[in-house]
Amino acid sequence: MSVPRAVVLLSGGLDSATALAQAVADGNDCYTLSFEYGQRHRAELDAAKRVAAQLGAIEHREIPIPVGLYGGSALTDPEIDVPEHGDEGIPVTYVPARNTVFLSLALGWAEVLGAETIVIGVNAIDYSGYPDCRPEFIAAFQALAALATKQAVEGRPVRIEAPLIELTKAQIIRRGIDLGVDYALTVSCYRADEQGRACGRCDSCRLRREGFVAVGVEDPTRYL
Amino acid sequence: MSVPRAVVLLSGGLDSATALAQAVADGNDCYTLSFEYGQRHRAELDAAKRVAAQLGAIEHREIPIPVGLYGGSALTDPEIDVPEHGDEGIPVTYVPARNTVFLSLALGWAEVLGAETIVIGVNAIDYSGYPDCRPEFIAAFQALAALATKQAVEGRPVRIEAPLIELTKAQIIRRGIDLGVDYALTVSCYRADEQGRACGRCDSCRLRREGFVAVGVEDPTRYL
Repeated sequence: MSVPRAVVLLSGGLDSATALAQAVADGNDCYTLSFEYGQRHRAELDAAKRVAAQLGAIEHREIPIPVGLYGGSALTDPEIDVPEHGDEGIPVTYVPARNTVFLSLALGWAEVLGAETIVIGVNAIDYSGYPDCRPEFIAAFQALAALATKQAVEGRPVRIEAPLIELTKAQIIRRGIDLGVDYALTVSCYRADEQGRACGRCDSCRLRREGFVAVGVEDPTRYL
Repeated sequence: MSVPRAVVLLSGGLDSATALAQAVADGNDCYTLSFEYGQRHRAELDAAKRVAAQLGAIEHREIPIPVGLYGGSALTDPEIDVPEHGDEGIPVTYVPARNTVFLSLALGWAEVLGAETIVIGVNAIDYSGYPDCRPEFIAAFQALAALATKQAVEGRPVRIEAPLIELTKAQIIRRGIDLGVDYALTVSCYRADEQGRACGRCDSCRLRREGFVAVGVEDPTRYL
């Protein structure tokens, strides 16, 4: 029997590294996908490449997405400051339709590869409140994928798996440590420097730091 | 009151030109979007640019999509011949997840623009049988869009409009002529030459030719 294939979205951060480790542990041949969409730094893309190699991905691709379409987010627009504390509602670090675009491109690659699964490391517990990280969004994309492709029409719709969606940050870190993830390779900070050193103050740094404290293991993050 | 905005997917072919004309006639400021995804020829992209200008689009963008992800289609792989007659089932000209990717990128741009509508010229009557041209696919994308963005969560979900979906090719042509579309600018052929001259024999040429015959107007297509 052939080994099942999974396309895994990999940002270079803690969550998607853990999701990849889970997909590998589940017995999949994993094909990882990162996106260059005008992030403030390349550190997370470099981190994704290292994580893919450490966890044994079969192939890693980095896809450019047209930056011009994505003005209006603090993650892509140097004119907008990354905030140091959570706002009410959806924060300015939200990127328009980001996970919809990422999952769509993954859907195309999955069909070409004949992959059974797309894995995305979204989390709806310790997260920044983005609409496209919620379980109902993932379910809607699953419903779309069941209609969108030749593979689906022929009775083999791709499954969208979000294995971390209901875990706390601490549970994610604990699972990743069990699965052998080297979190020192990952970069979570919204405004890391080119060496991947984290600011320690943005929303993403705060969630990560609190997770390591809760687990009671040493935080391997390199701070500025 | 401000003029409503629409993002219109524009391939350079007959259907999407008509959909754009409809969106303009409906009173929208239209922002058109074409994709370079490794098509066999640039003629349809050049056609899209001319159509956008003729019909008064406010802005036209051409977005490159990574070709490497899209092997396996006769439209992007020179090793696979474009067939000259319809196959059973979904033909080899199917491109994996194409409309899902196009609509996702349109969703991002629509949110940045604050557009109310995304217009797509898909048609499920005289068409090639692609799964992502069917009404149920469009409805599933609408459901996804209602969950995916900040704009949607704040109570202003974008509407996905497919104004041609239940029209015959002849009805589409008749509507376009009424709306002032210059079909001589459009290119439908799957394997047109660089000047936009059509083969006259592929599925897309066949549907277009039969449409003009049914309407009883002269076909402005330039054939090889």
